[in-house]
Amino acid sequence: MRRSLFLLLLALPTALLAAQGPAPERPPQEDRWITLGTRGGPIASPIRSQPANLLLNGGRAYLIDAGDGTAGQLAKAGVPANRIQAVFVSHLHFDHTAGLAGLLGLRWQTNAPNRLRIYGPPGTAALVDGLLASMVPGTTAGYGVPGTPQADPRGQVEVTELRDGATVALDGMTIRARSNSHYSFAPGSDLAARYQSLSLRFDLPGRSIVYTGDTGPSAAVEALARGADLLVAEMMDVEDTIAKVRLASPDLDPRAAAGMEAHLRNHHLLPGDVGRLAAQAGVGAVVVTHFVGAETGSPAHLAYLREIAEHYDGPVVIANDLEGF
Amino acid sequence: MRRSLFLLLLALPTALLAAQGPAPERPPQEDRWITLGTRGGPIASPIRSQPANLLLNGGRAYLIDAGDGTAGQLAKAGVPANRIQAVFVSHLHFDHTAGLAGLLGLRWQTNAPNRLRIYGPPGTAALVDGLLASMVPGTTAGYGVPGTPQADPRGQVEVTELRDGATVALDGMTIRARSNSHYSFAPGSDLAARYQSLSLRFDLPGRSIVYTGDTGPSAAVEALARGADLLVAEMMDVEDTIAKVRLASPDLDPRAAAGMEAHLRNHHLLPGDVGRLAAQAGVGAVVVTHFVGAETGSPAHLAYLREIAEHYDGPVVIANDLEGF
Repeated sequence: MRRSLFLLLLALPTALLAAQGPAPERPPQEDRWITLGTRGGPIASPIRSQPANLLLNGGRAYLIDAGDGTAGQLAKAGVPANRIQAVFVSHLHFDHTAGLAGLLGLRWQTNAPNRLRIYGPPGTAALVDGLLASMVPGTTAGYGVPGTPQADPRGQVEVTELRDGATVALDGMTIRARSNSHYSFAPGSDLAARYQSLSLRFDLPGRSIVYTGDTGPSAAVEALARGADLLVAEMMDVEDTIAKVRLASPDLDPRAAAGMEAHLRNHHLLPGDVGRLAAQAGVGAVVVTHFVGAETGSPAHLAYLREIAEHYDGPVVIANDLEGF
Repeated sequence: MRRSLFLLLLALPTALLAAQGPAPERPPQEDRWITLGTRGGPIASPIRSQPANLLLNGGRAYLIDAGDGTAGQLAKAGVPANRIQAVFVSHLHFDHTAGLAGLLGLRWQTNAPNRLRIYGPPGTAALVDGLLASMVPGTTAGYGVPGTPQADPRGQVEVTELRDGATVALDGMTIRARSNSHYSFAPGSDLAARYQSLSLRFDLPGRSIVYTGDTGPSAAVEALARGADLLVAEMMDVEDTIAKVRLASPDLDPRAAAGMEAHLRNHHLLPGDVGRLAAQAGVGAVVVTHFVGAETGSPAHLAYLREIAEHYDGPVVIANDLEGF
C-alpha cells in the first residue's frame, strides 16, 4: 500500500505533463542513485565529501558506503538518518566506513524505530562490534536524566557479512557481490581467506546499477557489470595522488611508501580502465565517483573524459556531491 | 624554532601593513578559534555541520569536540587531519564524538607522524578502545599489499580522562575542566560517579577562551568563565527543538519522550541563560555555537540576540561554520 501510494505520487507529475503535451517516452524513474560524497580518501577534500552514496528505491533509502560526513550529506539530500533501511559496505578502508559511527550514534540518540541492516565484506561484524563497544559510555550516561528508558544499541543493528558470489534479496531488489582486485593477497593465504573488497550489483525493479567500490581492473567486476544500465565507478589519477601522498607524508617509512604506491597503481581504476570496463561490460552509462584527481577547470579534468571516451562511447559524468542519477 | 618561524610568518603581513600606514593597535592574533561545525545534534542539518571546533595556537592545531564530518570541515579550514595535536572532548554524546572514527582512521591511512592526544571526560578511554577495536579488520587488511609494514593504531593515540577540576598544561596553554549541568544524575549515585559533562577553559599566552560544551545554567561554568576574553557558548531554542523531536520520532516511547523533554529543558542554555552567564562572568565577547533554533531570515533568529542583550551588553555572534574568532 505504501508502494502503491508512492507510485501514485510518482504518476502525478506525469499526468500533469500529459495534460500539456505528448506523454514522455519512459515512465518516471522510481529509483535514484545519489552521490553523497564523491572524493576518494584518505586525504579529505574541501569540496567533496568522503565516499558515500544514497540509493532510493520504492520509497526506501539505502546507503552504499558511509564515509565521514554521511549524516550531514544525508541531511542535504533531505533524508533523515532514521529513514535508512540498510547500509552496504564495499570494503573496510576508513574513508568508506567512518560515517557509520555517526549513523549508529545519531540513530540511537533519536530513537530510530527500525533496525539498521549492515551488509559488508568479512570483518564487518568486528567493525560494528567495535563501534557498539565504543558507544557503551555514551549510551550508559544517556541523556543524563535518571530513570529514562534507553534502547540497547546492539538491538538497533543487524550485520550480514557477504563474500564473493553472495546474493541478497531485499525489498524487491537483488544485490550481488563479487570480490574485486582492490586487495592482492596471495591466493590461499590467511589474509586472502579473511578479507575481501567487494563490488556490488543492485538489480532493482526498473534498472540495474553496478557499484565498483574500490578496485583495480577485474574480470569479476566486468562480469558483474555486464549489461547494467548504470556503472558507478571509482576513478583515480594515480600520478597526481602519489605526488599528494608524498607531500602529505614526507617522512613516511620508505617500505610503507613503496607499498602505498604499489597499492595505488594496482588497486584502482585509471580513466582508461573505466572506459575499458564500461565498453567490455556494455553498460548504458557511467557515473564516476570516488574521484581522485584534478578538478573542473584544470585541463587534466577534461583529459580524463577523453581517456574514457577512447574506449567507451556512452554517456559519462564525473559526479559532484549530491547529484542524482 | 618552528614557533619562531610561525611568529615570523605572522609578522610579515604586519610589516607590509606598516609600510602602508600607521601600525595596527594590537599585534596580530597568534591564536584563533574556528567553528568547524555549529549545529547541535543529534538531528543533522543541511547547512551546519555537527559540533566541532578548531583551536590554532602557536602554529599548532587542536580540536574541541569532533562530530561527524570533522575531517571534511578541517579540509575546508585548510588543516590536514595529520596536523591535529590533540582533541578535547566535552562529553560523550555522539554528535560531539562521531568524527573521532574518521580522524583515527584517516590518520592511520595517511601514516600520521605524531601521536594524537585525546582528552575527555570519564568514559573517553572506553570510547577510544571501542573505536580502536573497530579498526582491527581495516588495519589488518591494510592496503592489501602483502609485506607492507603497518602501524598499530593503538600506538597513534593517547587518552587522558579529565574530571571536574582537572588542569592540563599543554604546549604553553593551560586547560581547565569543570563538570557542568548537562547531566543531572543524583549526587552520590553510581552514574554521577562514572560520568561527567565538561566545560573547558583554554588559557593561551594571548587570550582566554571558555567553551561551555553542552550545559544548563551552572555556577561552576560561571566560575570557570570569569573574566574570559571569549565565551564560546551552546544555545538552544528548546520549544522549537521539542517540536522537531516529536516530528522526527512520532512513535517514541512516552517515558523516553518525557525524559528527552526534561533533558532539553534542564540541560541546555536558552538565549537568556547565555546572556546571564556572559554578564555574570564578565566575559569580553560571546560566540554562540552548538546552535539549535531558527536560522537567519526568521524573526526568531534576531529575537535570540535580543534575549541575550537583555542581560549582556558585549559583542555577540551566532557563529556559522568555518568562522574564525
